Amino acid sequence: MAAPLEKTKVGIVGMGTVGSGVAKLLLDYGDRTARHAGRTLWLESVVVRDFEKPRGVELPKGVLTDDLTKITKNPEIVAVAHLVGGLEPARTILLDLLESGKDVITANKALLAEHGPELFDRARALGRSIAFEASVAGGIPIIANISQCLSANQIESLLGILNGTSNFILTQMEERDADYDEAVREAQRLGYAEADPTFDVDGRDAAQKLAILAHLAFGARVHWSQIPRQGIDTLDVIDLRYAKQLGYRIKLLASAQLVEDALELHVSPTLVKIGTPLAEVRGAYNAIAVVGDAVGRLFFHGLGAGQMPTASAVVADMIDTVVGRTGITFRTLELWSNREARVTQRDYDNVLGRYYMRFRVDDHPGVLAEVAGALGRASVSIASVLQQETDQLRPGENHVGPQSAGESIVDLVIMTHKASEGAARRAMEDISKLPSVRPGSVRLRIRG
Amino acid sequence: MAAPLEKTKVGIVGMGTVGSGVAKLLLDYGDRTARHAGRTLWLESVVVRDFEKPRGVELPKGVLTDDLTKITKNPEIVAVAHLVGGLEPARTILLDLLESGKDVITANKALLAEHGPELFDRARALGRSIAFEASVAGGIPIIANISQCLSANQIESLLGILNGTSNFILTQMEERDADYDEAVREAQRLGYAEADPTFDVDGRDAAQKLAILAHLAFGARVHWSQIPRQGIDTLDVIDLRYAKQLGYRIKLLASAQLVEDALELHVSPTLVKIGTPLAEVRGAYNAIAVVGDAVGRLFFHGLGAGQMPTASAVVADMIDTVVGRTGITFRTLELWSNREARVTQRDYDNVLGRYYMRFRVDDHPGVLAEVAGALGRASVSIASVLQQETDQLRPGENHVGPQSAGESIVDLVIMTHKASEGAARRAMEDISKLPSVRPGSVRLRIRG
Repeated sequence: MAAPLEKTKVGIVGMGTVGSGVAKLLLDYGDRTARHAGRTLWLESVVVRDFEKPRGVELPKGVLTDDLTKITKNPEIVAVAHLVGGLEPARTILLDLLESGKDVITANKALLAEHGPELFDRARALGRSIAFEASVAGGIPIIANISQCLSANQIESLLGILNGTSNFILTQMEERDADYDEAVREAQRLGYAEADPTFDVDGRDAAQKLAILAHLAFGARVHWSQIPRQGIDTLDVIDLRYAKQLGYRIKLLASAQLVEDALELHVSPTLVKIGTPLAEVRGAYNAIAVVGDAVGRLFFHGLGAGQMPTASAVVADMIDTVVGRTGITFRTLELWSNREARVTQRDYDNVLGRYYMRFRVDDHPGVLAEVAGALGRASVSIASVLQQETDQLRPGENHVGPQSAGESIVDLVIMTHKASEGAARRAMEDISKLPSVRPGSVRLRIRG
Repeated sequence: MAAPLEKTKVGIVGMGTVGSGVAKLLLDYGDRTARHAGRTLWLESVVVRDFEKPRGVELPKGVLTDDLTKITKNPEIVAVAHLVGGLEPARTILLDLLESGKDVITANKALLAEHGPELFDRARALGRSIAFEASVAGGIPIIANISQCLSANQIESLLGILNGTSNFILTQMEERDADYDEAVREAQRLGYAEADPTFDVDGRDAAQKLAILAHLAFGARVHWSQIPRQGIDTLDVIDLRYAKQLGYRIKLLASAQLVEDALELHVSPTLVKIGTPLAEVRGAYNAIAVVGDAVGRLFFHGLGAGQMPTASAVVADMIDTVVGRTGITFRTLELWSNREARVTQRDYDNVLGRYYMRFRVDDHPGVLAEVAGALGRASVSIASVLQQETDQLRPGENHVGPQSAGESIVDLVIMTHKASEGAARRAMEDISKLPSVRPGSVRLRIRG
């Protein structure tokens, strides 16, 4: 018979959805963690703000507390899952944990994206570590894959569907031909969107995750707010319909690409060819396509959120932390150290791409020539044009007002060849001033 | 300015395709390995059998040798990439490296599948480690993902396209409507198949990889030869055509599935629904779908072979080894230790599945009833039937011989509901004895 396993004491701060999942894995499935860690991870303390709130998991007597010092003043607790959302008091709690000698595992991507340099520098100075697999893409182990498994590569590009809420809404819009508001309500009803989904749908959440990945993969030191972003909150279902006609789906892509030693970063609703892996990512799933110069193209697909996928990442990090792997990674990678950035961000105006443009134009001869002329003057060349009676794809729309009096309005959809962001933006501005062009022009990126 | 980095000396044994790739990464891209390892990996010695053979990479003077003791007797070399194929002298060389105190990184899956327990036990006894990410699925970091990133999960199933040669041949057969021999010749011409592709196409290579993954994911101790397997070498292009008509592609799947605490293992050409991720894996790519009880379904896709993808995995392992992560993993995981197996293999006869069956039958009334009757007696129930004039899908075939004299022969394709392997096999045996059924019946698995 084997000798009894050594116990390593751990703690949890924050007992929301993910915290409950972590407690469940530690308490109900201790054999697994023991098998992979070579010791028992003993859940000693769980700190919550509101002691009285009902929890989804039953904790042993004496474990639950609302007093953080039960962890910080207990030298036997070596690693703590920090599952507190928002910036404060999350930041202060994380610093307190580090100061008291704990290694920390966190799922708080907003905190890392905002205060990463401070937190990582402090951990390093104290000889502690911060693990954060759960902060990006939930159950997909993208942090470990980029920072360890692909360490022999120069990463060349990284393209991800990193916000499950947005992807769920887009999938709803496409599959049920629902407009944005209707799809958001359905996502809220099913628990895939919060009551206020702003941070998910405006691209902020994806930009914060992209900032973390770009730091790991490229040594970029770009604050998330410096990443140009567009969310899905302004999308019209009609553009999903046109995209489909043209053989595309619209996905919210977070993109980091190394082009001639500069890093192009942006978060954009993007037309992705149907049949390619990223286009087939449905519902609340996340996915990431990484290209490394040695390994070629790797594709990861999995659940980007949810209680147990995220808890899976937290507990794996906890095991890595107590066995010592995280400490090694943390020291050798010099995460967020004040070393120089290895790469600079390209001015967004100079980023090249192909574009889908839709204009609402008066249906009279010569309007295409006017629009095409404006594009030509901005050096944006046209790959294809689709002009369609508006009614065909807007079945529910009532044509009242000026446009029904005489002339009708049609949608003019143009797919461009490669052009710079700046040129495309200027072309759009010029076109919007044309007398035949009505307000409400749309410009989206096309992948590839 | 930073202090000069510490040097850690490493070696390579074997300078074939992968060895040259590893040398290239170490010599030409030392900054990367230094950045991830916090030290320079210094390539001190490369041991080859034939000193005179031309190499694809230029080595510094004095590095190349045909004397293994240049590594084993040099105490400064701490980690060695073992890139020697076959079983002997590969086994002896690996043991020599361990005995001389080196940590080993190997890509030799056949060696691990055959002698894993001996090699791993010896490494453990000597306090050394063996890393083997490159042995399965080339550039896809599936070993690290299963043994570290998913450590909080009970893996429930693992389904992989693990042999790139077979997948390339199947893709050729499907896309060019080519028969097996023609597709093999094309694969050989393009370098995706060896002159003798037996081990790739008969399912052996996939079974060896599956044995390694099943050990890691389930604690199974199953020798690869105990895994039921069928290769692609007996496939007829006509079955790919029928599969396509029915909405499926045929893929060589390596499958491990935990069902009621027993492990079902097999390697089988399998009909996979078009549009699902595994069906869309083309050419020489590999892919693995893993289901964990916490994380849900994860999908990995990437290049399963080739010089640089495999070298990428070897060098990542080398970095993990010299920084100490591999040693920790190796000790805590107790790989291939003589602890009891955690799971037993289910008798293949009791493994349930759906089946595609094709029979060549005389086209006379009553034959379907005879076949259906035999299936019914074996308790195999029919989901759908496709009966077609043979000529329609066999355009090039000449109808001479007995069947052209009077009665014609038709293909009868049956898709079954779930049945046990044993029942399906017995049904096939019975059916083949029916007077209206000609030789050459085919049975393939259907996924799901």
